[in-house]
Amino acid sequence: MGIAITGLGSYIPETVVKNNDFLNHSFLDEKGNSIGYSPKEILEKFEAITGIHERRYASASHTATSMGYEAAKLAIEDSGINPEELDYIVFAHNFGEVNKSTLQSNMVPSLAARTKHLLKIKNNRCVAYDLIFGCPGWLEGVIQCSAFIKAKIAKKCLIIGSETLSRVVDSFDRDSMIYSDGAGACIIEEKETSGGVLEHISASYTLEECDYLFFGPSNNKQIDNGLGYLKMHGRKIYEFALSHVPLAMKTCLDQSGVKIEEIKKILIHQANEKMDEGIVKRFYRLYGMNVPENIMPMSIKLLGNSSVATLPTLFHRIISNKMKDHNLSLGDTILLASVGAGMNINAMIYRL
Amino acid sequence: MGIAITGLGSYIPETVVKNNDFLNHSFLDEKGNSIGYSPKEILEKFEAITGIHERRYASASHTATSMGYEAAKLAIEDSGINPEELDYIVFAHNFGEVNKSTLQSNMVPSLAARTKHLLKIKNNRCVAYDLIFGCPGWLEGVIQCSAFIKAKIAKKCLIIGSETLSRVVDSFDRDSMIYSDGAGACIIEEKETSGGVLEHISASYTLEECDYLFFGPSNNKQIDNGLGYLKMHGRKIYEFALSHVPLAMKTCLDQSGVKIEEIKKILIHQANEKMDEGIVKRFYRLYGMNVPENIMPMSIKLLGNSSVATLPTLFHRIISNKMKDHNLSLGDTILLASVGAGMNINAMIYRL
Repeated sequence: MGIAITGLGSYIPETVVKNNDFLNHSFLDEKGNSIGYSPKEILEKFEAITGIHERRYASASHTATSMGYEAAKLAIEDSGINPEELDYIVFAHNFGEVNKSTLQSNMVPSLAARTKHLLKIKNNRCVAYDLIFGCPGWLEGVIQCSAFIKAKIAKKCLIIGSETLSRVVDSFDRDSMIYSDGAGACIIEEKETSGGVLEHISASYTLEECDYLFFGPSNNKQIDNGLGYLKMHGRKIYEFALSHVPLAMKTCLDQSGVKIEEIKKILIHQANEKMDEGIVKRFYRLYGMNVPENIMPMSIKLLGNSSVATLPTLFHRIISNKMKDHNLSLGDTILLASVGAGMNINAMIYRL
Repeated sequence: MGIAITGLGSYIPETVVKNNDFLNHSFLDEKGNSIGYSPKEILEKFEAITGIHERRYASASHTATSMGYEAAKLAIEDSGINPEELDYIVFAHNFGEVNKSTLQSNMVPSLAARTKHLLKIKNNRCVAYDLIFGCPGWLEGVIQCSAFIKAKIAKKCLIIGSETLSRVVDSFDRDSMIYSDGAGACIIEEKETSGGVLEHISASYTLEECDYLFFGPSNNKQIDNGLGYLKMHGRKIYEFALSHVPLAMKTCLDQSGVKIEEIKKILIHQANEKMDEGIVKRFYRLYGMNVPENIMPMSIKLLGNSSVATLPTLFHRIISNKMKDHNLSLGDTILLASVGAGMNINAMIYRL
């Protein structure tokens, strides 16, 4: 018995925001002082490190739920299942539905319940809940639903990751340019085949790392609205990710019994290009190897970091043959990994 | 093999707010008009229906996390486990940490991660996540962790329910008097005994019922701050609960194979006294029985409705012999049930 991803979907917002669109922005450091570089210099450095050239923002008519719903519809269609057969709908996010003017989060009812409502599912025994686990939330949802299937309380599950980060960023903070909006979703099912989810691992580093991603005031000290914006200790996160993510990936792979040479692609949460490259380099170094060519598909250049949405979106784009030089076939084995607020890490070995 | 609750804890805020404290409040209907009754009449009617005489509000120094942490410490102590052995920390809530002035919710990092940090747990493989499932969130966390234990990815789990509803209510809305603050927690473990979690059931009714609990503007139309407050369609919830909760309880009991006569106590989410009495009456009517005396311990009179916190708090108070006429012994079988935003329902048959 295997647990397989039988459908994938994603929603990429239409509004494209290019780096050049930030040329007239006034960026301040966390003390409220000018950064000391021209916007052009800031943007060049930003793109060199993060790999981000442009990102997508949700239109005013969209919310985390409505984007998640669009991705879910595609995943259901792709899987061919009858949505009434779903046992679980898990919706991973970190900010709920965000009111753009007040920055108030709304999760009553849960985004999973709202999505189930939009999908017009009548089956009351389909349980809808939201999962808060930082950026690794979507993959953690897949892990939780795999456990429900193993525990015989579910057979078919829908897992969604959707976020409108553009609504919780501080526009005076350079880091705001990293974040974007989007949604991804998948269907997992019990299947009478080998393959599927071969192994997974999850971890929460909270002793020293709890506040690496946090809510903080705007860098513009003139703004005294009491509101919190998404903030990060970028340097600390970078070092944390490079120390811990490769080891988690190795533990997961070794536990699975799969040989490293069998890994066809590594799908990493699209947080920062240099960081992701560093993680994969260190991962292969743990096996005394250099990074194989074309092992790591990246979508961050055009889509930015949309938190819980990056992994399912990336997976969907590969499967849909939208990623040049990257394709996957039945029987291929991949490694998925993510890291984010908590600080949480997870990884999965998956065979198509 | 059984899955047993081996520790319980709760945190009851010190600030007591009595019904009489609302005597000078100006209550308005949802159109902004005066209710048409004197505050005294409103309060008498309120108490007759809800059974609430007083409720507890968290002090300014407390948050949903800090209260959850207090309850978690007691549950860990009660269980006698080493917290480093925990595989999961699940934190059920619906509003995150609420900033009292902006009503902004903060869940970055998750409240589970914050609690793990406060507990000083070093074990990185202890996975901390937040669960959003309306008022039934704590019981759903117990159900999820039971599945993790059955799926062999966990042995010991901490499940917390904590909420500061006093910070999200509209003081111009009579329903605001229902809500209170508090936290409850438990430890569940795999045990080489019979008993423990015998059966459970979960359901999400979203087709027609999705917005029965929702965010809405203040009843005071002078307030134009764009903020949402916790609102409910009370009549619809009442009818929904009476139609669906007794049947869910019956399905759960019948699936468990336990006879109704074996049920020693029924612990229901403390939402509204009349509603809870109605649920239990209809439940027994499904078996052609009258409600046995002293079957349903109630804490709502003194504690109000603290959402995810009511069930673990009630259970903890019974086990700690703080509920007159209610006690439980080893081998006793109980039924737990809850209903709330989503609309979600769950129930569990549990043997001590």
